[in-house]
Amino acid sequence: MDGRNIIGKMKTGSEVGVLNVFGPGLQRILEGSFHIAGDAEIDKALELAEDAFRIYKDMPGIRRAEFLHAIADGILALDDNLIQRAMQESGLPEGRIRGERGRTINQLRLFAEVAKEGSWVDARIDRADPGRKPIPKPDVRSMLRPIGPVVVYTASNFPLAFSTAGGDTAAAFAAGCPVIVKAHESHLGTNSLVAIAIQKAVEKTGMPDGIFSSLNGTGIGLGQKLAQHEKVKAIAFTGSHKAGKAIFDTAAKRKNPIPVFAEMGSINPVLLLEGALQKRGATMAAQYANSVTLGVGQFCTNPGLLIAKTGPGLDTFLQELGKLIQEKKPQVMLNQGICDAYARGTTQLLAQTGVELLAQSGQEAQDFEGRPGVAMINASDFIANPVLKKELFGPFTLVVRCQDDAEMEAVIRSLDGQLTGTVMGEAEEIIRYRAFIDLLQDRVGRIIFNGVPTGVEVCAAMHHGGPYPATTDVRFTSVGTASIKRFGRPLAYQDYLPELLPDELKDENPLNIWRYLDGVLGKT
Amino acid sequence: MDGRNIIGKMKTGSEVGVLNVFGPGLQRILEGSFHIAGDAEIDKALELAEDAFRIYKDMPGIRRAEFLHAIADGILALDDNLIQRAMQESGLPEGRIRGERGRTINQLRLFAEVAKEGSWVDARIDRADPGRKPIPKPDVRSMLRPIGPVVVYTASNFPLAFSTAGGDTAAAFAAGCPVIVKAHESHLGTNSLVAIAIQKAVEKTGMPDGIFSSLNGTGIGLGQKLAQHEKVKAIAFTGSHKAGKAIFDTAAKRKNPIPVFAEMGSINPVLLLEGALQKRGATMAAQYANSVTLGVGQFCTNPGLLIAKTGPGLDTFLQELGKLIQEKKPQVMLNQGICDAYARGTTQLLAQTGVELLAQSGQEAQDFEGRPGVAMINASDFIANPVLKKELFGPFTLVVRCQDDAEMEAVIRSLDGQLTGTVMGEAEEIIRYRAFIDLLQDRVGRIIFNGVPTGVEVCAAMHHGGPYPATTDVRFTSVGTASIKRFGRPLAYQDYLPELLPDELKDENPLNIWRYLDGVLGKT
Repeated sequence: MDGRNIIGKMKTGSEVGVLNVFGPGLQRILEGSFHIAGDAEIDKALELAEDAFRIYKDMPGIRRAEFLHAIADGILALDDNLIQRAMQESGLPEGRIRGERGRTINQLRLFAEVAKEGSWVDARIDRADPGRKPIPKPDVRSMLRPIGPVVVYTASNFPLAFSTAGGDTAAAFAAGCPVIVKAHESHLGTNSLVAIAIQKAVEKTGMPDGIFSSLNGTGIGLGQKLAQHEKVKAIAFTGSHKAGKAIFDTAAKRKNPIPVFAEMGSINPVLLLEGALQKRGATMAAQYANSVTLGVGQFCTNPGLLIAKTGPGLDTFLQELGKLIQEKKPQVMLNQGICDAYARGTTQLLAQTGVELLAQSGQEAQDFEGRPGVAMINASDFIANPVLKKELFGPFTLVVRCQDDAEMEAVIRSLDGQLTGTVMGEAEEIIRYRAFIDLLQDRVGRIIFNGVPTGVEVCAAMHHGGPYPATTDVRFTSVGTASIKRFGRPLAYQDYLPELLPDELKDENPLNIWRYLDGVLGKT
Repeated sequence: MDGRNIIGKMKTGSEVGVLNVFGPGLQRILEGSFHIAGDAEIDKALELAEDAFRIYKDMPGIRRAEFLHAIADGILALDDNLIQRAMQESGLPEGRIRGERGRTINQLRLFAEVAKEGSWVDARIDRADPGRKPIPKPDVRSMLRPIGPVVVYTASNFPLAFSTAGGDTAAAFAAGCPVIVKAHESHLGTNSLVAIAIQKAVEKTGMPDGIFSSLNGTGIGLGQKLAQHEKVKAIAFTGSHKAGKAIFDTAAKRKNPIPVFAEMGSINPVLLLEGALQKRGATMAAQYANSVTLGVGQFCTNPGLLIAKTGPGLDTFLQELGKLIQEKKPQVMLNQGICDAYARGTTQLLAQTGVELLAQSGQEAQDFEGRPGVAMINASDFIANPVLKKELFGPFTLVVRCQDDAEMEAVIRSLDGQLTGTVMGEAEEIIRYRAFIDLLQDRVGRIIFNGVPTGVEVCAAMHHGGPYPATTDVRFTSVGTASIKRFGRPLAYQDYLPELLPDELKDENPLNIWRYLDGVLGKT
């Protein structure tokens, strides 16, 4: 296991210190010592990235696509080495890791197609009118240009799909930006394997030195240094509120503040309407027992809050949900920090005024395991208590019982920004409750009818984001093809020399992309 | 002159205090006492805005368009009352104010068309595939939805086009957002006239109470309170670096940080290449003498920095520029603060190491006037001095003389983020200097060949923005139709009830807008 930092085409190991990774399932330190990046290595990575940017920003989409496909090929070639290491480091089962690898490959190939097709740049051409009175109209053209070197903080809960070659990296490369990865301390070995695959893809496809670096270090050390580094032009992060907010605050205080796309989790409220509870309460209980415990509850879209009116429908649902949660087994969590935080958080939650434990897994949690659970509270106690509005990362959900519609509305109004909001209801009652759903809409980035929030489809229409504190930037998604827009910034070219215009803005539209010509969308 | 605050459909005047406006041209206090908004009025305006948002966000584009056209009609109906007051408050000549009114009207009508046409929402539909393995694919649709109540800080230098019913307000209304205007202290009367016209348009077109409010107060008082107010969801600002940065910092420190679109000015560097200087130095001098002094230099796109290599071409240019600047007359500036800052700033600039005055207007400035001037410096002194990188708001430009290409490159590399960068050059030398132009591109939002940066065309392709410190958000423009995107945020609808979907996302595409269907752009 190669524990060096990847600095462009080099591998380096400074003498600052090393990190090791503890495997939560095997309960031992795993092979490999990972060198913490020193200041000189950080500076070198950013210098190279700045140089690489000068070349890569003008590389055509087709070259960027080759690079992305080569990364995907390289990851596939790692085969079982990668699967095993990711399993050991994350404690996640093989099926999940294989699935996540599939998603990672698909994302890389999807962004390759986006880069190749090229219309994402929002090209606009307004032609000159030299005869216009009182002053001539200039020729103005604009498009999204890559923003510059991007730092990607990899996520603990997706060692592949939201990590080294995950969605953020794929989107940044597709957009024309170099990437510097800050590897997550929980899966430094998985990171090393993938980072070396990217390094090889750089070589294979003739990409500029410095288009990619991968650095090891702690959040407080390396993480903060990267957020402060003047050559960094944007940041993508998926993780805890505490870490995301620290990065956001640091970036806002820079001499030159930069965009921070931090996805910081959410409690993902679910409205359970009475008609649906009565008609299919047991089915819904099964859906939600599975969604709450999927991946040991370690998803940012985990349904942490179920909101319903008291009544026989809810009683049946709760009985069934309690029974199913009891049957669920504790499972190994991603790392000790997350496991401890889950245990502490559960204890804290259960100690809050009015919180009543409905059910827990029938088995006690062993070391590094998270024990599924479900608790209840009434609406007024919930509304009054900010502790209950915070994400409890793990296989737990809280049911808020409302006496009437007014209480249900008040619960919705008390919610902070969320990644998702879900409504389980019959068609007629969904229409009847549309005012409530409207309130929910204002607080979420994605609204789901009769489904579960876990499982984020990677597609053109997906929005994985939401109002603060779900993310630090309500205007951008971190999943799906639209996430490429995070790494572009508009540039206007006025009365430009035709031969110096980017292909996207040339008269003859050589890339055959969609663009606005004098305000009209088309391919001419 | 009605000095009350506009709170939705009401007019109120609390007892907090009043402000008066001093007319810089007439040199006296103008008619009207303007009530400073108290905390209760601020809260009321935001409460109403929140209520209005619930209704307005779902109003079809065609209704929003009616509202925008009604505002335009109302402003035209104010006729000479408005023109005279704006002239008195700004010191700007009649032709300029009439032109600015025309631009304001055009912007309102342009955004009305954008709202009516509807494609700006970036609608995306990915259809379900219930048979997909291993898990069914859900139906996911997304579009930009209005972000919520927007505060618009009006600009001192455009009492109409970047103020009460200016581009920010028009874009926010078109997007579906209520607007709360923080009126600029320099033109409270102009603001009152336009605000009342908007209030009448609200009534006439049946818009919800609270869709618009206009408040009087100081930047430190009202300005900061609005930036902190929890019901405010986005901020648009045009003005000084100091004020913009204060708003940005306040918004970043909120419990729920919000987007701030602050356009904070720029020195707008111009590269004068030797071939062009030799061939048409005198013509270029005339162009730039006019651009530097246009509107008494009170444009954020004023060319404050000319960069050229020493040589006979530059000598001729400077001789001619000096002569023309000498012939320009001092003119009344927008207000005392701006005039004092210009006088202080000029003195400070001329006191810097290596700065040499080339020419000044042959006339001394009278009270409230700004005296045109041009100074010179060598490259190394310029590069070393951060004072010279800051905008001097007024009719002044600084010429940086470079000994060679290396110095010219170093000057470009030393520049902060800018709204614009301009290159004056012959075609062959533009191509020869493309590496320098590439460096310039990275530092600007708009790049211009053989023109002047002043005069910002309002069109689809315009980008009026740029890297920090030109703006606080490099990803958005504040001029042109794309500026509407500042006030939208994506929302995804998963497996939604068809009858509850917004028209933009209904299967039958009733609005006939452009959208992505399973990743393919079209009108089906």
